[in-house]
Amino acid sequence: MAKKLAVIGGIAAGMSAAAKARRMDRDLEIVVFTDETRVSYGACGLPYYISGEIKKASQLVARTIEQFKELGIKVRTQCRVEEIRPATRSLLIRSFKTGDQHEFRYDSLVIATGAAARIPPIANADLPGVFKLRNVEDGENIRQYLAEAKPQNAVIVGGGYIGLEMAEVLHQQGVKVAIVEMAPHLAPNMDLDMAEILQQYLREQGIEVFTGEKVLALEGDASVSSQAKAGGGEASASSPTASTNLTNRVRQLVTDRRTLPADLVLLSAGVTPNSWLAEKAGLALGAQKAIRVNQRMETSEPGIYAAGDCATTFLLVTGEEVYIPMGTTANKQGRTAGENAAGGNAEFRGVVGTGIARVLDLEIARTGLTERECQQKGLTYEAKMIQAKTLPGFFAHSGKIYVKVLAEPHGGRLLGAQIVGFAGAGKRIDVFATALTLGATMDQLEDLDLAYAPPFSPVYDPILIAINQF
Amino acid sequence: MAKKLAVIGGIAAGMSAAAKARRMDRDLEIVVFTDETRVSYGACGLPYYISGEIKKASQLVARTIEQFKELGIKVRTQCRVEEIRPATRSLLIRSFKTGDQHEFRYDSLVIATGAAARIPPIANADLPGVFKLRNVEDGENIRQYLAEAKPQNAVIVGGGYIGLEMAEVLHQQGVKVAIVEMAPHLAPNMDLDMAEILQQYLREQGIEVFTGEKVLALEGDASVSSQAKAGGGEASASSPTASTNLTNRVRQLVTDRRTLPADLVLLSAGVTPNSWLAEKAGLALGAQKAIRVNQRMETSEPGIYAAGDCATTFLLVTGEEVYIPMGTTANKQGRTAGENAAGGNAEFRGVVGTGIARVLDLEIARTGLTERECQQKGLTYEAKMIQAKTLPGFFAHSGKIYVKVLAEPHGGRLLGAQIVGFAGAGKRIDVFATALTLGATMDQLEDLDLAYAPPFSPVYDPILIAINQF
Repeated sequence: MAKKLAVIGGIAAGMSAAAKARRMDRDLEIVVFTDETRVSYGACGLPYYISGEIKKASQLVARTIEQFKELGIKVRTQCRVEEIRPATRSLLIRSFKTGDQHEFRYDSLVIATGAAARIPPIANADLPGVFKLRNVEDGENIRQYLAEAKPQNAVIVGGGYIGLEMAEVLHQQGVKVAIVEMAPHLAPNMDLDMAEILQQYLREQGIEVFTGEKVLALEGDASVSSQAKAGGGEASASSPTASTNLTNRVRQLVTDRRTLPADLVLLSAGVTPNSWLAEKAGLALGAQKAIRVNQRMETSEPGIYAAGDCATTFLLVTGEEVYIPMGTTANKQGRTAGENAAGGNAEFRGVVGTGIARVLDLEIARTGLTERECQQKGLTYEAKMIQAKTLPGFFAHSGKIYVKVLAEPHGGRLLGAQIVGFAGAGKRIDVFATALTLGATMDQLEDLDLAYAPPFSPVYDPILIAINQF
Repeated sequence: MAKKLAVIGGIAAGMSAAAKARRMDRDLEIVVFTDETRVSYGACGLPYYISGEIKKASQLVARTIEQFKELGIKVRTQCRVEEIRPATRSLLIRSFKTGDQHEFRYDSLVIATGAAARIPPIANADLPGVFKLRNVEDGENIRQYLAEAKPQNAVIVGGGYIGLEMAEVLHQQGVKVAIVEMAPHLAPNMDLDMAEILQQYLREQGIEVFTGEKVLALEGDASVSSQAKAGGGEASASSPTASTNLTNRVRQLVTDRRTLPADLVLLSAGVTPNSWLAEKAGLALGAQKAIRVNQRMETSEPGIYAAGDCATTFLLVTGEEVYIPMGTTANKQGRTAGENAAGGNAEFRGVVGTGIARVLDLEIARTGLTERECQQKGLTYEAKMIQAKTLPGFFAHSGKIYVKVLAEPHGGRLLGAQIVGFAGAGKRIDVFATALTLGATMDQLEDLDLAYAPPFSPVYDPILIAINQF
């Protein structure tokens, strides 16, 4: 009888695991369980679906359920795995359609349950007009709300990558945007000096930025108009339309410092790993309560692998276990888990913490450790920041670029880098990501032979100018 | 008495050397000798000066003679160093203005005489309308000729970077362009399979490409019209204008296979190092008769350094001495020579052979060894080529990218890489350049944590897709 591989979760990690397992073993029975209706979609594309750059939600889908079926991979949609039973190697599954429960026996299991938006403890976070952005349904809801409710004032709670990307999207749709971040600065995984460049740029573009500020409550039409009646003079709600429920929609957001008008609120305050199922089954958790895996994606339980936004990984710079949920990592971990779950022997060593985002015309990117992280870890380091141009100065479209580099003193090991700048700036981080992966010292990098021609770079690439400060 | 540093040559390497020497030693007497009228200009920008993207030639100049004077660096323009006399540490110099000769005693010397356009042995290569492109004067001549002679048909002899960049410029000015290359393909420092993608693209854009074809002669109005009289029916010359000498201007170009109409011919068949002065002084020459230097930029003669397009360097991939004249290398070598000539102790280890160019919307880049070079060196290697997209497929502006990678078998050392593709493709070569510099193996690169967000890359960057073929 064919062995059975069960996969819980049908997005990046889960479907990568299923596809890789199939390539490894043609005879394996592979079943994917998901509580959604779509699989294998690129959640990172959601802001661009909302902006309309991506016309249809189906374009986000890398492979359809039909295509997986052709590969002999069964996908069970709209069902929830309610229990993992390692002792009997089985899953307890409940169907949304019938409400029935049934048991599924597996030989190996890949847990790819992803992460959930972290909903901050804010009063009335369930008002109409308040959104998170994790899956296609969220994207459709926001797109529909924009079209029908025509919001004027959006407040984005959380200035990480998704918050920043959505600030771009909403700003370009003519919505007035404010970002409220609890941390001392936006892009909390960068340093303050780099984030300030971003913040100044956003303000110049007419996007409000409030940092170190805590959101306390949201208020809807009901409470706002009662206040208005009491205090007088508040504008009345615009008329709600047919298909979107706008009764008592959100009207303002209250922080510990001010009240902001808000008829659209996006909660993008990070994510938490969906690890409760694994925890209940007795699997060990690691950093930030993500499912602990080794470099083979093995959990603490034999035959059970985990991958993607629900799992830990390793930061190659320090070797420590970390939780850094990223689409790229999910794909790579999924592939590794799938290969091993099908009897292979693959490793995913870890990440160097690379991240990138575009916000209007500005690009931000980071890799490795920030200065703050170096301090927290008690590392001895040198930090240098330079300002340069993306192209030779004689080109009108040459833009500013700031590069910050952290390294051990005296030409020692590269520890991290951050970039903020205009077109062509961000992807330059890949040079540092590569150098970090290879454990390079600053001495080794001082003569880097980076590509130069005027349409691409000044004769000294900004990367090299930064390196040559050491 | 202050020591004296003489520098021969006032462009990238020479002026980098002078400036660095000044930073090293405030008291050093520094004199730069050049046969031109400008110093410190970016010759790589010349095509974009001709296109008009760079408005004025002065914008090509990084620092003026006046600015160097303020640094205490004397620049003697329009003079030629006719002899280097190592025995007496002196130079014999002739002034263009007075015709006088005088001797200059130095304590240390940096030779930065650059390279000259290689003029192929073609009959009538001196006709009006025939150009090379090495210095600002060449650029001004071509720009003026375009404006005044309004050429209809340009033939570019040599399909290296300058030829390709000028193909773009002339094509965009509405001139019909043909490129004739003696080698089996354009971009001769890439492999045929990659070059063919470029060639097909150029043909689709209406640029003619003739490869493996040798230019024999150029013919001007005089000979063409005598043929026309004999054969009948050739079009007569357009009326020449005032300031450009168009008497007997070039009219056609004859190869070993065909005759092409040509009222503008650019000779861009590579360069040869200006090493005759050094050779006459008894200095050792190396690869391709460039001046042999070690990693300190020392020539065979104590106290004499060489840097830039006149000097050799080392290919870090193999350790061998090579001649690869590049603007970036010239700057780095100049800086190293200047530091050492001022009593410092700097090294420039070498290059990995990185190059890049844009031709209309296409970007080409390379680093390390090509497949042909691997074969010539008798190396055991694996080659893989992939086609991918620069961005996620759901973006309309996602473009094709081809990546070819050469590596030692079984996850061994990276040997080289080539990229051809649309916007965003070319600079990705820097990841490979960095990995080559660090001596990376393919095993080390397989999980590279490259930056991903939809505006920048597909979830698997094309670079990683190529690496994962190994």
